[in-house]
This record gives sequence, C-alpha cells and structure tokens, in this order.
Amino acid sequence: MVLLVEGADSPQRAKTAINLIRYCPDEVVAVLDPPNQGLTTLETLGIESRFPIISNLSESEGADSVVVGVAPSGGLVPETMRPAIREAILKGWTVYSGMHQFLSDDTEFAALVASNPGKIIDLRKNTHRTVATGEALSEDQLRILTVGQDCSVGKMVVSLEVARELQRRGSDAAFLATGQTGILIAGDGIPMDAVVGDFLNGAAEALARRYSDNSILMVEGQGSIFHPRYSPVTLGLMHGVQPHGLIYCMEAGREFFGGMDVRIPEIGLQIDTYETLTRPGKHTPVIGVAINTRKLDEQAAREVVRELEQQLKLPVTDVIRFGTEPLLKAVSSMKRNG
Amino acid sequence: MVLLVEGADSPQRAKTAINLIRYCPDEVVAVLDPPNQGLTTLETLGIESRFPIISNLSESEGADSVVVGVAPSGGLVPETMRPAIREAILKGWTVYSGMHQFLSDDTEFAALVASNPGKIIDLRKNTHRTVATGEALSEDQLRILTVGQDCSVGKMVVSLEVARELQRRGSDAAFLATGQTGILIAGDGIPMDAVVGDFLNGAAEALARRYSDNSILMVEGQGSIFHPRYSPVTLGLMHGVQPHGLIYCMEAGREFFGGMDVRIPEIGLQIDTYETLTRPGKHTPVIGVAINTRKLDEQAAREVVRELEQQLKLPVTDVIRFGTEPLLKAVSSMKRNG
Repeated sequence: MVLLVEGADSPQRAKTAINLIRYCPDEVVAVLDPPNQGLTTLETLGIESRFPIISNLSESEGADSVVVGVAPSGGLVPETMRPAIREAILKGWTVYSGMHQFLSDDTEFAALVASNPGKIIDLRKNTHRTVATGEALSEDQLRILTVGQDCSVGKMVVSLEVARELQRRGSDAAFLATGQTGILIAGDGIPMDAVVGDFLNGAAEALARRYSDNSILMVEGQGSIFHPRYSPVTLGLMHGVQPHGLIYCMEAGREFFGGMDVRIPEIGLQIDTYETLTRPGKHTPVIGVAINTRKLDEQAAREVVRELEQQLKLPVTDVIRFGTEPLLKAVSSMKRNG
Repeated sequence: MVLLVEGADSPQRAKTAINLIRYCPDEVVAVLDPPNQGLTTLETLGIESRFPIISNLSESEGADSVVVGVAPSGGLVPETMRPAIREAILKGWTVYSGMHQFLSDDTEFAALVASNPGKIIDLRKNTHRTVATGEALSEDQLRILTVGQDCSVGKMVVSLEVARELQRRGSDAAFLATGQTGILIAGDGIPMDAVVGDFLNGAAEALARRYSDNSILMVEGQGSIFHPRYSPVTLGLMHGVQPHGLIYCMEAGREFFGGMDVRIPEIGLQIDTYETLTRPGKHTPVIGVAINTRKLDEQAAREVVRELEQQLKLPVTDVIRFGTEPLLKAVSSMKRNG
C-alpha cells in the first residue's frame, strides 16, 4: 500500500502512516507526499524506513491500495489528497480511509467508484446499535486497557507492543483495536470514536466478548478521561471492556492537551479518577506507566523514568526506547494473582 | 397530538408520554393504548390528566400528529405501534419519533411517506460533526447541569422546573434540551445520545454557545457517570457545557442501575467524581440534590429529604412534590457569587 500523508500539518497528525510503517512494513510500498519528494521518512515523519517519498502514484511499483495516512482533528480529508484518491480509484485500487467524513458518501468519489474498478473502505463506518448488557465479562481472562493523559501519547503502541511480546513468549494474548490505525494493523476491531453515544459501551463490550477465549486482552485505549474534546470514548471503553488493570500512558513534558490551551490535570488526580471510575464498586488499579520520551535524550529519558517510578511506586518504561519488560512483569503478576 | 404508548413494559418506559402530558397539556389530545382503552392515565401511567385512553386514531378529534411516547432501551419501535404509525402517515399527519431506529429509514414507512401526505420527524436524527473547541464559554452566564445516579431519575424534569420557575420570576433563564422528550417540549435541542462519539462534547458545546445571551442555562443531563451502559453521553455534557454548578438527581431507595444487577456507587463517591471530573483543574460544586420520592408516602418523603440534607449539607427537594424553592435559592446564590 501507498501511504498518503500530504496535508498533515505535523508528524503527529500522520500517526496512521507512522504506525503502518512501524507495524506493517511488509505491506507498505511508498509514502506519497509531493512537497517532500526525495526526503526520507526519518526527516518528514520521524521514523526510519526503506520507503521512498514519492510525488506520483505511478512511481509505486507493486502497490494496489492507498491509505489516508493522517488523522486530522474532526476527520476531514485534506483537499490536497483528493487527486491521489481519484487516481487510485481509476487504477482499480482499494482506498482505505479512517476519516469521519466517509469517502463513500463523497459525491465525486461515490460516482467514480460506481463506474470504475476501484473500491473504498471507510474504516470508521459502522452500524453498532447495541446497548451494553453490563453483565460481567469472563473472569477467566485478564483484560488490560491503556488509558492516558491525552490523545497521541502512545496508547495503541503500548497495547500492541505488550500483546506482541506476550505472544512471542507463547501466550495467546490478543490486541484489541479500537481506532482506525489499530484496525488496519490488526485487521479487526471497532472504530469507537465513530460509534453513536448510546452504543459506545455496547460496542466495546461486544468486541471484548468476541475475544473471550483469549487468556489476556490488551485493549487499545482512546482519548483521555479529562479531555475537553474526546473524553466520552475513553469512558465508553472503560465501562464496556471491564478491565482488571490499566496502563497509564503519557508523554514526558506534555502540560497541555494537544492543540489546546487547557492544562492537563496532575497525574495523581488522573490515576485516582481512572481507578475509581472504571468499574462501579471495584477498584481497578493502574499497574504501570508507559511514558513517551521521544523529545528527550537518552540520559534525560532514563532520569524521568526513574523519577516517575519513585513518585508513583509503579513500573515505568518507554516501550519503544527501553522495551516492554516492566509492563510485561506487571501484567504477568496480575495474571498470577487473578 | 396523540401519544402512542402501547408496548411500553412499564410506566417508566413511557416517560416521553408522561412528560408531554405534564409539560405540553395544550397540545395533547389523547393517549393511544388499545389494551388499556377506557382506563385513566393515572391508572396506566401514574399521572392525572383529562386525556382519554383510546384504541383507534379515529377517536382522536382535532389531532394532526402522533408521538412515539416510549423510550425503550436500545431505541427500537415496538411492533405493536406500527399499525398506528402507518395509519397516521396515510391520514397526512406528522409522526414524531425519538427512537434510535429511524422511522424514515424503515423500508415500509419510507415508502408510505413517499406516496402519502404524512411526514416523519426523527428527533434523534442528527449530523453533528464538529469537535469541541474546548475554548471557554461565556463567564457572564451561569450554567447548571443536572447529573444523577442513574437514568430516569428526573434530570429533565428538574432542569425544566427550575428554568420555568426562574422565568416566572422574571429571569431570562433557558432550558437546554438534550434528549428527545426535552426537544419535543422545548422545540429545540440536541439528541446527545444519538451523536457520534468524537462529536459529543462538540454538540453540547455548540448548543450552549447558541444560548450565550441567556443569563442562566439549565441544561438537561443524560445517563450517569458510573452507568455501565450510558456513561459516555453524561461525560460529553459535562465537558461540552462547562457548567459552573451541578444538581445531583436521584430516586429514593434506588440501589441498582435500572434493569441491571449492578449496584449504584454510594452518593459521596458520585458527588466527588462529578465535582472533580467536570472541569479539568476546576472544582465544579454540586449545589443541591433533587430526589424523586414517588414511591414514598408524604411523611417518609419529608424524612428522607431531611436526612439527606443533614448528611450532605446541601439543599434537597423533590421538585414535583415539594417544589423547586431550595434549588432556586442555590442557583440564585451562585449567580450572586459569580
């Protein structure tokens, strides 16, 4: 597949593309980003790869699909991306989009698809219309949900890295995808933020129930419980998935919610709120912290991890920089105790 | 209008009908409920009225619309109601529905409407696709949100009663409707529980901003922050509306979430969670409690109100039984202090 990232105003907005490069390298062919043609993905997206940055789909040999690789706030397709989408449909390729604005509802694209061999898959399109039962989910499995201080702090990456490492060690752990990027990577999941309000908990519950045979579920979290924009989806996952433990995800140095001038509440209050609110009547512990230290050098990163461990008396790691070991131990220890 | 209530398994499920009888008596003509024809609304719905219970739309002189008057969990139209909806469309009437299952998407009803003079208004149909800005709303107005221990404890009634009493006393207070019944009564509002996850906060914020000229906003709450099924909509209102104060609504004696075997967390924890979670970094006080005492006799009701006042050191009332005075004072006192 070719990743479309033109129009992303910052690498953070291109997190779909970045994570497909990281987790699905065998399926990626190139990155389409005309203004940056010839640069490397390390220079434009902050991630090393062998994939060229091209300015025209004709340069991408062997591709048969394009992915809208940005996640702009509000979910509108950047205008600059429309020519490539048009061309892909004409070529008979598949266009994957995780935008709230469905490509299949776009007058021009709908008409193109009707008379050309290409097709559109809107990852956020869903018809979830089931209220949660609220009945207890399996107690034979361990469910761990990633939560966090904000969006884009690494919740998906943490859930995925821990699940993959558990699998490598012989566990039948599963990664549960709840956002468009996770769904592309896992090939399954529920686009929680596109589900109608009354059915959020029900959609999360149904997803968890579908995996009731796995001994461990690592559930991708969304948003943040105090987020002025995206808090409801967070709570829908907390109540729908009924997790036994939480991993708190954060970025070193982040003080304000992304793109807003609202200060993020202090970590103690957040952990307390997550632990109290998740399961009515039951304490749901934060079992570890995943901190994203990409903006720090190695030594500063080690220091911030150590300080946080001392402050919170919890295992802390940056899963990309220092690996998942402390979190794996925390998960395994819950499994033994449970 | 004629209220359709057939198929409601309990009066509580017919809360749309009950509240239209209470707040829009000039617009109601009759209640259609064939199995209960000839009984009174006091006997079937627990509310006194002059409206007959009829078994056929032809008995309703002067009507030009029907309202689906029940709110079943999950929002599906009861099968028993279909003949009356069909007949209303054939007669050229308007059919109002607050169901999640849109009548206008129903193959049979859509075909009927296309070839007959009647029309369908789906109150929950919406196209809200705007993310909250998270920017501060007007500080020149006072916003009060009703929250609660569960669904169906009286949040809409409390917001409406307080707003109406404030208006009677000369205030330009407004009632903000956030559910289908409130929207029918007020003629405006946003069906929060039918808005897509990512846009819940945005929809609430937009509604509040639309009323920025009113000095007091009484916002109808939804669901409950600990509700295993309906919590996300509650949080969307809390974060979208940015209230200055909360009124906590409850029913005397209710221990479990309606229709579930999940125990409702104790009131202290709930109030604490609402106060902490509503506005990041700011304490949002619960300024009073509205308790629904319909299942108690007068003396027991007075006792439970007094006990709760002593326990919480807050004004407490049953707005239907004892009036809104204690809550009005609490609101006015905030207005003076703010």
